[in-house]
Amino acid sequence: MTKKVRLEDIAKEAGVSIATVSRALSDNPAVSDQTKRRIWDLARRQGYSLRNLPGAGDAAVTTLSIVVPKPQGRDGWMLDPFFQGLLGGIGEAARSLSCDYLVSHADPQNYADLSRLLDSSRASGIIFLGQSFLHERLNRLVGHPMKFIVWGGELPGQDYASVGSDNQRGGEMAAAHLARMGRTKIAFFGDTDAPEINQRYQGYCRALERFNLTPDSDLVFPAHFEIESAANSMHSLISRGKDFDGVVCASDLIAIGVIRALREHGRSVPEDVSIVGYDDIQLARYFDPPLTTVGQDMTLAGRLMVMKLLNASDPSDMRSERLPTELIQRESCGA
Amino acid sequence: MTKKVRLEDIAKEAGVSIATVSRALSDNPAVSDQTKRRIWDLARRQGYSLRNLPGAGDAAVTTLSIVVPKPQGRDGWMLDPFFQGLLGGIGEAARSLSCDYLVSHADPQNYADLSRLLDSSRASGIIFLGQSFLHERLNRLVGHPMKFIVWGGELPGQDYASVGSDNQRGGEMAAAHLARMGRTKIAFFGDTDAPEINQRYQGYCRALERFNLTPDSDLVFPAHFEIESAANSMHSLISRGKDFDGVVCASDLIAIGVIRALREHGRSVPEDVSIVGYDDIQLARYFDPPLTTVGQDMTLAGRLMVMKLLNASDPSDMRSERLPTELIQRESCGA
Repeated sequence: MTKKVRLEDIAKEAGVSIATVSRALSDNPAVSDQTKRRIWDLARRQGYSLRNLPGAGDAAVTTLSIVVPKPQGRDGWMLDPFFQGLLGGIGEAARSLSCDYLVSHADPQNYADLSRLLDSSRASGIIFLGQSFLHERLNRLVGHPMKFIVWGGELPGQDYASVGSDNQRGGEMAAAHLARMGRTKIAFFGDTDAPEINQRYQGYCRALERFNLTPDSDLVFPAHFEIESAANSMHSLISRGKDFDGVVCASDLIAIGVIRALREHGRSVPEDVSIVGYDDIQLARYFDPPLTTVGQDMTLAGRLMVMKLLNASDPSDMRSERLPTELIQRESCGA
Repeated sequence: MTKKVRLEDIAKEAGVSIATVSRALSDNPAVSDQTKRRIWDLARRQGYSLRNLPGAGDAAVTTLSIVVPKPQGRDGWMLDPFFQGLLGGIGEAARSLSCDYLVSHADPQNYADLSRLLDSSRASGIIFLGQSFLHERLNRLVGHPMKFIVWGGELPGQDYASVGSDNQRGGEMAAAHLARMGRTKIAFFGDTDAPEINQRYQGYCRALERFNLTPDSDLVFPAHFEIESAANSMHSLISRGKDFDGVVCASDLIAIGVIRALREHGRSVPEDVSIVGYDDIQLARYFDPPLTTVGQDMTLAGRLMVMKLLNASDPSDMRSERLPTELIQRESCGA
């Protein structure tokens, strides 16, 4: 049986970042030939499946299938910049590896839907962009001969392979940063029914505890991933007269809506209220004020998902990968 | 033979926008039932092919194929926000019409490549995202039994169907706006070798002529669609000591690069130099300063391409569609 190797392990041994390992394994010209050879050797020695390394000699076109479970209560999310970024990362990787990808309109609701999807697919592998409410059902698919991977955080008792951020750590970094800036009444904006957002919320709670801040359930608002929805949530928070001086937002779009609503009420960011976003979409850097945010590298994420599917010799040969979690400090939190 | 009907004609007769017609024909819930019925009736009477209207009874999954010729001299363009927006528009439309789409890694270089693509495709239709340098070759494909449509401006002597903006008008609106703001030394930043950009450049020249401004070839710079490349072009323009007070940019990313470089040289926007972008990517509205730009509705464009392919009964049943061209005034030009 093939040993399961994480890119993380190769990166550690080579003393480079996961991104560099992933670039080297996909023969990206940005990596020097010397580094590539070193990483390929390491990968081979660690037993990493090398079917798609240059010279591995598989010239046939492979196709991946992308399935995007619709997030609860949301339409139009194909227009969301974060998901467009993920699809862009997949697209770049697929292109550089001469691989096509099919974006399915399927919106699986239950195990039967998922199982039918895997049975009928002629793709070389399936990427689920999001766990949505399907975690338990995805677990039941393990053992199916079709390879699949899921974008999302690793959840307790997870048997399938995923690529995603350490959401709990991300939420904790965001709230801890606000606490260190002297903020004591920190709100959380995000839909805690969604598994990834719930992990971020758990991290937020842990940071409050670490800094001896009292959690206040009145400061937790179920904003969806839309600017408008987030602005409305902020309007209701303000109209209730609750006091707060910081907000951890479950996405950058939520942060943008929150900042807009605050301004409409004459409150300034970061002077009156400090804001942390999540994702680091391109907009985050250029927004006024530029957003302090927890970065998720969508280009790397797309590349990792494509490579894992192409490189695994069979479904049992897949392991989850965690993206590095980083807090990117800009101006929405003050200096 | 089916009469060729433009959505534009239906829109005019119904007294609504093209966007509303397109929404109505795709049974979008945002349009009232009353309006939908009126537009469906009009469409039927004008002979618009209604195969995909609700009740037309085709339940099988259709697949569209997306081919993205690589723009000259560019890598990594799947990460470009404009193209991600177009793909998002296609994705939303495909999803709402229960249609899958395959993004091909193919990068056709000549007529033989294109012809092989059409021959071997099992899709219901092909979308080419960009004309690149393939215009003449695409013309030669007309008559092939596979339906296809091209994202791009209508070019002289064009026989295939396209969806795109009126680039010449867009370029003209941008330059005329700068002239009306009192700017007299207006530069153009964009790669005039690309057909769409060349049309924008022609419009820019026409506006200069209308306003009796002398064109200056030293103010035309071949910036590519990347922030870095545009910033570098602006650095060289400034280092040459040429005087200028306005810039028409062929994309919003170019505008962002240009503004960054101007700031690094201590010039302020819009006080010293007024800037107009192109595309209206989401970033344009939130950039500091918010960009005055020529809007291209990517969601509508994606929807139109998908619907045209699904609705045409055969390749001869396709007509080009022009998106409305609008100048969106924000702050990068002054008030």
